[in-house]
Amino acid sequence: MTRVHNFSAGPAALPEPVLQQAAAEMLDWHGSGMSVMEMSHRGPQFMTILDEALALFRELLDVPAAYRVLFMQGGALGSNAFVPMNLLGDKTSIDFIDTGEWSKKTIAEAHKYAAVNLAASSAASGYTTIPPRESWLLDPAAAYVHLCANETIGGVEWHTTPDVGSVPLVADVSSTILSRPLDVSRFGLIYGGAQKNIGPAGLTIVVVHESLLGRALPITPSAFDFRVLADNGSMYNTPPTYAIYIAGLVFNWIKAQGGLPAMERRNAEKAALLYDTLDASSLFSNMVDKACRSRMNVTFKTPDPRLDTAFVAGADARGLVQLKGHRVVGGMRASIYNAMPLEGVQALVNYIKEFEAQHR
Amino acid sequence: MTRVHNFSAGPAALPEPVLQQAAAEMLDWHGSGMSVMEMSHRGPQFMTILDEALALFRELLDVPAAYRVLFMQGGALGSNAFVPMNLLGDKTSIDFIDTGEWSKKTIAEAHKYAAVNLAASSAASGYTTIPPRESWLLDPAAAYVHLCANETIGGVEWHTTPDVGSVPLVADVSSTILSRPLDVSRFGLIYGGAQKNIGPAGLTIVVVHESLLGRALPITPSAFDFRVLADNGSMYNTPPTYAIYIAGLVFNWIKAQGGLPAMERRNAEKAALLYDTLDASSLFSNMVDKACRSRMNVTFKTPDPRLDTAFVAGADARGLVQLKGHRVVGGMRASIYNAMPLEGVQALVNYIKEFEAQHR
Repeated sequence: MTRVHNFSAGPAALPEPVLQQAAAEMLDWHGSGMSVMEMSHRGPQFMTILDEALALFRELLDVPAAYRVLFMQGGALGSNAFVPMNLLGDKTSIDFIDTGEWSKKTIAEAHKYAAVNLAASSAASGYTTIPPRESWLLDPAAAYVHLCANETIGGVEWHTTPDVGSVPLVADVSSTILSRPLDVSRFGLIYGGAQKNIGPAGLTIVVVHESLLGRALPITPSAFDFRVLADNGSMYNTPPTYAIYIAGLVFNWIKAQGGLPAMERRNAEKAALLYDTLDASSLFSNMVDKACRSRMNVTFKTPDPRLDTAFVAGADARGLVQLKGHRVVGGMRASIYNAMPLEGVQALVNYIKEFEAQHR
Repeated sequence: MTRVHNFSAGPAALPEPVLQQAAAEMLDWHGSGMSVMEMSHRGPQFMTILDEALALFRELLDVPAAYRVLFMQGGALGSNAFVPMNLLGDKTSIDFIDTGEWSKKTIAEAHKYAAVNLAASSAASGYTTIPPRESWLLDPAAAYVHLCANETIGGVEWHTTPDVGSVPLVADVSSTILSRPLDVSRFGLIYGGAQKNIGPAGLTIVVVHESLLGRALPITPSAFDFRVLADNGSMYNTPPTYAIYIAGLVFNWIKAQGGLPAMERRNAEKAALLYDTLDASSLFSNMVDKACRSRMNVTFKTPDPRLDTAFVAGADARGLVQLKGHRVVGGMRASIYNAMPLEGVQALVNYIKEFEAQHR
């Protein structure tokens, strides 16, 4: 068995010790005689798994007591509908900060439920910047202000949390959650799919301030009503049990590595190594403003799409896989989430230099 | 490692060869150097897994060409909202046949979106029967007629598909799908969670006639718009990839056993062994009308709740686990889905006889 270095944007690489433990426990979890997949979600074994995963998540992210953590389904795209359904209450509009493709998807979905105020956008820059705070046109009557904490397609990340006054701030944190410490108290709600830094696709995590519960529109499906989920400990309907189990193993792995401060150091080091290499290159380039370059998704390209194709094929042959950029922006994309080791980024950097030497 | 006989109503037992293969492939699927959990859902490896799972499912259930098969999220409870959202179109009411707890949940959710016509109910019998077809009060203007193909809590199953004329018939088949052949052409739509006969919780399967697509209400979340899912091959948003992989392994296992005719024979044999034992008992009884006893969930009890508790504890000590009945009906419940071998039911029958000999 040879493991590759997997740069997929998501579903993405998982820590190898997590996969080893999952394989070892597949037929018999802790002497139960059952796989975790086979357990009743209301039985004592799975309740232990769920409770431990929730407690570890709260500990890692230092979630304040006034926030509820919900494990649900539907991904970030599903949440793009469920968040407005749950938070609009008697308000009628939402403020959006548009920083790329995922912002655009979120805004398009919100149109079904609310009036949309585009408070700021970096479209004019080709989505290589974050609009400066002083340029935003916020509406004090908005139900909330929404931003996407990291745009996986363009490779743009918010490195600070903006002040938006008394209107709740909501963020799609699918691709940054648990990659570094985050002051949850600055947000009314954060949400994200698990398939970047947490676990398998099919699990969605919502962290919401208690004061925002109980506002769901009458059309909200019960299985996605945050108040119902909070009141039932994420067990109103059968949760994605195996995905929660894997997430718990990942949380344990993160804790053993030193928690989110350690993740932040490692991720900063990996990203710096890669961006420094690109900045020193005369063949490859990254287009994103340095102040908001993503530490999770590093986009780059050569001036020639044929060279990009050759680069990706050559990388694949070396076990550096899933490096092709998203079709919307082309080029390459290296997703270097928590589970990507420094050695993987070093191997990519070595190949970038070698490829450049051959093609300059 | 000792594996137990797991009678959980769901998530439920999986075939042991499926778990063995999943464990063996956990770190490296087919030489890819990746776990299935780590693969991009749009990469060639996962696309192969998805296409094979879809093709096998269609083959096993003999799905007619005019039907689309959707792999989505949210479970049956989520679908209780998404089915009305997708099928109401310009109609305003839905006909329901109420046969138990799951019917009631489905009806309660439908009230959010439509007028509900209770066309028939077996509540008066304590949900031990299915209302005779001639008693139903159907509305020809209804968007569809809904039934729950198997009530997992009460242990009531439809063994034939009723004729409802030209109004589409819709069924929640969560706990019977793939347990026997089904003439899909009799339905407009069937849906169900995977966690009984198919795979892990978190995967939901919808089979819908093409003529019913494109009717979604404007409030329908895009990630749960059946037209959007059909047009995008279940890949509008990231699907629950690992659950789909496990489902594909289960489909392969069913095919190797002889497909749905073989499943039906095995399930009929297991159910007959258990019901015959209960009918011959002077201590244990099953309350369901013989014409609609479930082959999937066999409910039974003694006259004394303390004896029931002792029975469940004794079963547990012998590795016959998760036999406690649902809190709504009490007593015991043996869920004997496809993956439960005849030996498991025989072991339960032996224990029932022994317990009765000790307590008569």
